[in-house]
Amino acid sequence: MVSSSYVALTPDFLTGKSSPSEFLETCLARVAKSEDMVRAFVAIDIEGARAQAEASTARWKAGQQLSPIDGMPVGVKDIIETADMPTGQGSPMWEGFESGRDAATVQALRDAGAIILGKTATTEFASSPTFAQTTNPHDPMRTPGGSSSGSTAAVGAGFVPLAIGSQVVGSTLRPSSYCGCVGFKPSTGGLNRSGSYDHLSHSCVGVIGATLEDVWVSAKQIATRVGGDPGYPGLMGPENLPDAQKPKRLLILQTDGWNRVTPGAREAFESVVEELKQSGVELIDRSTDADIEAFERMIADVRSLSDVILSWENRWPTAGYLRKDAEKVHPVTVERFNAARTLTQKDYAEALARRQSLRDAFAKVIAKGDGAITLAATGAAPVGLISTGDPGFNIPASIIGAPALSLPLLSDEGMPLGLQVIGRKDEDAALFGLATWITQWHG
Amino acid sequence: MVSSSYVALTPDFLTGKSSPSEFLETCLARVAKSEDMVRAFVAIDIEGARAQAEASTARWKAGQQLSPIDGMPVGVKDIIETADMPTGQGSPMWEGFESGRDAATVQALRDAGAIILGKTATTEFASSPTFAQTTNPHDPMRTPGGSSSGSTAAVGAGFVPLAIGSQVVGSTLRPSSYCGCVGFKPSTGGLNRSGSYDHLSHSCVGVIGATLEDVWVSAKQIATRVGGDPGYPGLMGPENLPDAQKPKRLLILQTDGWNRVTPGAREAFESVVEELKQSGVELIDRSTDADIEAFERMIADVRSLSDVILSWENRWPTAGYLRKDAEKVHPVTVERFNAARTLTQKDYAEALARRQSLRDAFAKVIAKGDGAITLAATGAAPVGLISTGDPGFNIPASIIGAPALSLPLLSDEGMPLGLQVIGRKDEDAALFGLATWITQWHG
Repeated sequence: MVSSSYVALTPDFLTGKSSPSEFLETCLARVAKSEDMVRAFVAIDIEGARAQAEASTARWKAGQQLSPIDGMPVGVKDIIETADMPTGQGSPMWEGFESGRDAATVQALRDAGAIILGKTATTEFASSPTFAQTTNPHDPMRTPGGSSSGSTAAVGAGFVPLAIGSQVVGSTLRPSSYCGCVGFKPSTGGLNRSGSYDHLSHSCVGVIGATLEDVWVSAKQIATRVGGDPGYPGLMGPENLPDAQKPKRLLILQTDGWNRVTPGAREAFESVVEELKQSGVELIDRSTDADIEAFERMIADVRSLSDVILSWENRWPTAGYLRKDAEKVHPVTVERFNAARTLTQKDYAEALARRQSLRDAFAKVIAKGDGAITLAATGAAPVGLISTGDPGFNIPASIIGAPALSLPLLSDEGMPLGLQVIGRKDEDAALFGLATWITQWHG
Repeated sequence: MVSSSYVALTPDFLTGKSSPSEFLETCLARVAKSEDMVRAFVAIDIEGARAQAEASTARWKAGQQLSPIDGMPVGVKDIIETADMPTGQGSPMWEGFESGRDAATVQALRDAGAIILGKTATTEFASSPTFAQTTNPHDPMRTPGGSSSGSTAAVGAGFVPLAIGSQVVGSTLRPSSYCGCVGFKPSTGGLNRSGSYDHLSHSCVGVIGATLEDVWVSAKQIATRVGGDPGYPGLMGPENLPDAQKPKRLLILQTDGWNRVTPGAREAFESVVEELKQSGVELIDRSTDADIEAFERMIADVRSLSDVILSWENRWPTAGYLRKDAEKVHPVTVERFNAARTLTQKDYAEALARRQSLRDAFAKVIAKGDGAITLAATGAAPVGLISTGDPGFNIPASIIGAPALSLPLLSDEGMPLGLQVIGRKDEDAALFGLATWITQWHG
């Protein structure tokens, strides 16, 4: 595919062999060629980007780059506020709305010299139904996944090396799997969500890129400048991509979604497991470890737990949208809201207590290995643009608040498929070390 | 003073002896008489309020009131979003800005039948410097306090029986003390802040009212509908004001601010202590209890800890405001931002760890009694409108995340002064039971 790394090229920016302007033009040529089909962007600022790339080119030549991602073109999910472009939340009701400020992540990226090329399509309110027409860059008949549809499609199409999304169910890892990107969901609170239309308690900023290096380096540039969510220090670790770290033992997690895996995806996953074993990594799963089995039983109905928490938390904004203009709200959103009417504060309190008990149980089980592997999706991106696919594999890490990556190492039906790697909470750097080893070893 | 209770009057609304419309007209008459001097509101919707009061009057007459606060006129601090009025954050930069939605608290109040009469003045970004000209309703030469200046002034002047504010340093309890209101700062996360320009990690929604009953009943109406901050169940307890509960033992806390207390305030506090002792309540303090002394030593420099946390968390929005239009930002805000430039993610992480250790220490020390008493301010509202007064007494409960009330039971220089009562975290209802007893006993 056409996606390309940015940080790896920057030594050439110092020597003048290449430049941010040249990099941007390569991106823009791909946009010109395919955006009519992919429809990743809801707003794009080509002239502004060119001017910023020129300034960045000059900084690199003078050795005065602001950071390792100075000049990097970035796409920003349209629930995240930008002072120079509207924030429409994927909703006809909010289309063109100017919030008048940059979100914390956007501000940090700009301060690091990155270029906000455009806003990327999201499903309505970053929830499941979509008004957008974004297609999968690997096959326009298929969904890119969601809710970070435009961000993953833009990276998968090579329009940008990096894009920002979010994940509260499966909104970063699933579309990353479908579009062939590296998708990163940090530990709870790892990257500052302030200035986003994203108030859900276990949601997070997602980082989507062409390479592990671009994703890690960019995430660190954000965390250093604006930290984590208020009350969380934010992502910790080295400025550069952590060194490859071969694991001694990995867990295989067969949680929700496993019984809906396509034959091709199952085969692809099993062959990775076999290769890992042959390379000397010990793999444990529910067939060999009673604690893993017990944890998987405990988390089996995680989807209904997720539904209770999100339904309660979404009652506030949805009631306001319905009061404002019910005809501009997607019928599925209305239906969910009506189902949530009977929820009480007590139901919510109980769901939060259950979430905490799952977090405690996961901390115990993940301590048995150096990380866990599973799939990032049940198979290739489904054909059709109405459904954004099955998020079953993504809910556990979302609820637990553990860091997780989708690595574009597998395939199914000739389409990309992600290997999901899950780490210990607040040990995001170790997860990248493990993912680097897996990527190098697999490649 | 002219402030008046709402909930206590509602039996007359059922019989038709009085009505929400009549109540509103009494409020509006006071507004007409004094608002030119008090300047509590930055926006007011008199005709809309009249129409809503009429509808509420009809509901009460038919016995179909939406809640015990149906028809209650409310003022809303201007950092909290309202769909029908702008949200200006006390800043010339944001004056007139339409965010297009109701915050969670506002929506809950409307759903309970309450009437949003207007938006109330706040200091810039709910921080200390002010562009507003709000005066103290008890003496126009004195500050009402801040940052919830307009909310406390409006309640103190009897313009509304209830107003919503916020507190991260001393923004609810200090102005409540100065204006003679009941001020309530719930436990961390107790009331949902979603839809407010208030991202600070230990900030909270403040509820300001003429009586304990109005404050408790309204807070519960909010919590039942929209719960706490995302991830927190929210305020728990009975629908009605908790019954008076005589304490066996109370702690006296002499934290930051104690050495700056005016002679009159000290005398007023000491006479309450004496009366409490005579009524059979045991009082312990640093002179009799080594653990209290140790805790007070531990929390002595809480103001500098608060500064580190808030300075880091405010870097993001302030940088954006400066980029947008530096001339419209208060010089004190600019100065604070410049001082915060050198802070690192590690400084913030260390400050959060220290905050947690203070919370753990407080949980141990408060377990020794049924609550703690101290002053809500160092004395009467200072003369002058530039400074909003000394928040020293308010920082401990803010940092610790414990529930706290300012009760308008004392006086200094002929002005109101609040007795502060602090409870155990997440035991807000017990705090109200204690405060009810103190109020009844003192009265």
